[in-house]
Amino acid sequence: MELISENRCFGGSHRRYRHFSKANQCEMVFAIYLPPQALVGEKVPVLYWLSGLTCTDENFATKAGAQRYAAKHSVALVMPDTSPRGENVANDERYNLGQGAGFYVNATSEPWASHYQMYDYVVNELPVLIEQHFPVNNMKSIAGHSMGGHGALQIALKNPERYRSVSAFAPIVNPSQTPWGQTAFHAYLGENPKEWANYDSTELLRQVSHAIPIRIDQGLSDDFYPVELQPEKFIEIAEQKGFFLAYFMHAGYDHSYYFVSSFIGEHIAFHAQYLK
Amino acid sequence: MELISENRCFGGSHRRYRHFSKANQCEMVFAIYLPPQALVGEKVPVLYWLSGLTCTDENFATKAGAQRYAAKHSVALVMPDTSPRGENVANDERYNLGQGAGFYVNATSEPWASHYQMYDYVVNELPVLIEQHFPVNNMKSIAGHSMGGHGALQIALKNPERYRSVSAFAPIVNPSQTPWGQTAFHAYLGENPKEWANYDSTELLRQVSHAIPIRIDQGLSDDFYPVELQPEKFIEIAEQKGFFLAYFMHAGYDHSYYFVSSFIGEHIAFHAQYLK
Repeated sequence: MELISENRCFGGSHRRYRHFSKANQCEMVFAIYLPPQALVGEKVPVLYWLSGLTCTDENFATKAGAQRYAAKHSVALVMPDTSPRGENVANDERYNLGQGAGFYVNATSEPWASHYQMYDYVVNELPVLIEQHFPVNNMKSIAGHSMGGHGALQIALKNPERYRSVSAFAPIVNPSQTPWGQTAFHAYLGENPKEWANYDSTELLRQVSHAIPIRIDQGLSDDFYPVELQPEKFIEIAEQKGFFLAYFMHAGYDHSYYFVSSFIGEHIAFHAQYLK
Repeated sequence: MELISENRCFGGSHRRYRHFSKANQCEMVFAIYLPPQALVGEKVPVLYWLSGLTCTDENFATKAGAQRYAAKHSVALVMPDTSPRGENVANDERYNLGQGAGFYVNATSEPWASHYQMYDYVVNELPVLIEQHFPVNNMKSIAGHSMGGHGALQIALKNPERYRSVSAFAPIVNPSQTPWGQTAFHAYLGENPKEWANYDSTELLRQVSHAIPIRIDQGLSDDFYPVELQPEKFIEIAEQKGFFLAYFMHAGYDHSYYFVSSFIGEHIAFHAQYLK
């Protein structure tokens, strides 16, 4: 693991690392924010953050202002990239497919399957690496934005024993039925409906018998809300099944990091309750 | 004035505008953050933020997390660009001269003098525009980072009747004696030592008989600290003259927005005391 950069921030340390990923068969970059308590040897819990389309590890790191709250609540933040990358990694001209758009699935169709194993990377490979190299304990929560909200929700719904809580800003909750998701699933997963359902949070929610606590925030001036996001069905199923879901709609807010930054403090406080 | 974009943020509104600047004789873009109170008709004070080398209005807007504190303290933020821009505006290949590096002076040497009038733009033109178009009162403070810290300090020292307080992160305080400043002053101001002194905060501080409250924060792991910044002489003069200067040195912090974001809350709280 190679340290790329290190910046002091809110009394803690924000670092970027490069390492070879066995899951993705390429070099990957991730960022970790260690709060002040971790720098003096305390083992802290971890919030995994999954970013949206076109992002790297840097968008959330520089724009969300999350380090302030991670420091306050003694939680480490781990911020993976959104896909495998490199000259030898398949790509597409569209911003919603290929590099920067891994959709947190294990691709089964070529030319994607040989590198696009982001589900395994986030769920299995990265946590082992983090727990080996950093002063963290084994308590984990997961959160994300847009495509990353999809990633966080489907991962949490399938792995309730691994995560304490899950939250999402403007998530793609029903990718089998919405355009960005359909494009990605068609390419990465082929036409097998079981594969699609296995990564669709709304379908997964129908199937599971219990769920960890969920928080979702949605801006009502988000251009992608009516077509790409459509959280209503997901909310309805959670209510019907009596799952704990805190859903907040915000008049006037859009899809940008101006929205995420406005409420990331509440999200980290939400997770901190369960990471104790 | 043309509205370029608008984003809801911390209950207020972050907007970017384009307008023709008489001072700079070109189109300029600035950003303004109106806190929630301003959106319901209250007239709020304004903190002007001057950014550093290579920045536009967007770096501080997206990376500092300042809107949170501006909302909390009912202060508007105004974020001008760092220079005139455009195809017809003189430029240089170096990142520390020309577009993105206006140094907040009125250039007197060609080819710069015809557009590079950032001092007049920030001190005279922009506040009139802001007070005409937005729900603000006439209470103003000024702050900045690096080259923008230089801008804020020299402007405040020359105009103590216009601003209530001034603060700076890692400012260039003695540009006549440090490399970035010398490059810029040589180009923009020619070889007249009086002109140079008129924009050098350390020289100005020697001359003035009173000063508004000043806060300066400096990271001790800032690569530019020993050569480009050197705040010690400025601090010493302020102490000798009995001016109010709060100076904070931060072990481990560098020159980046990870540093600015860590302490912008304290800076806005500092200004808010005087903007009442």
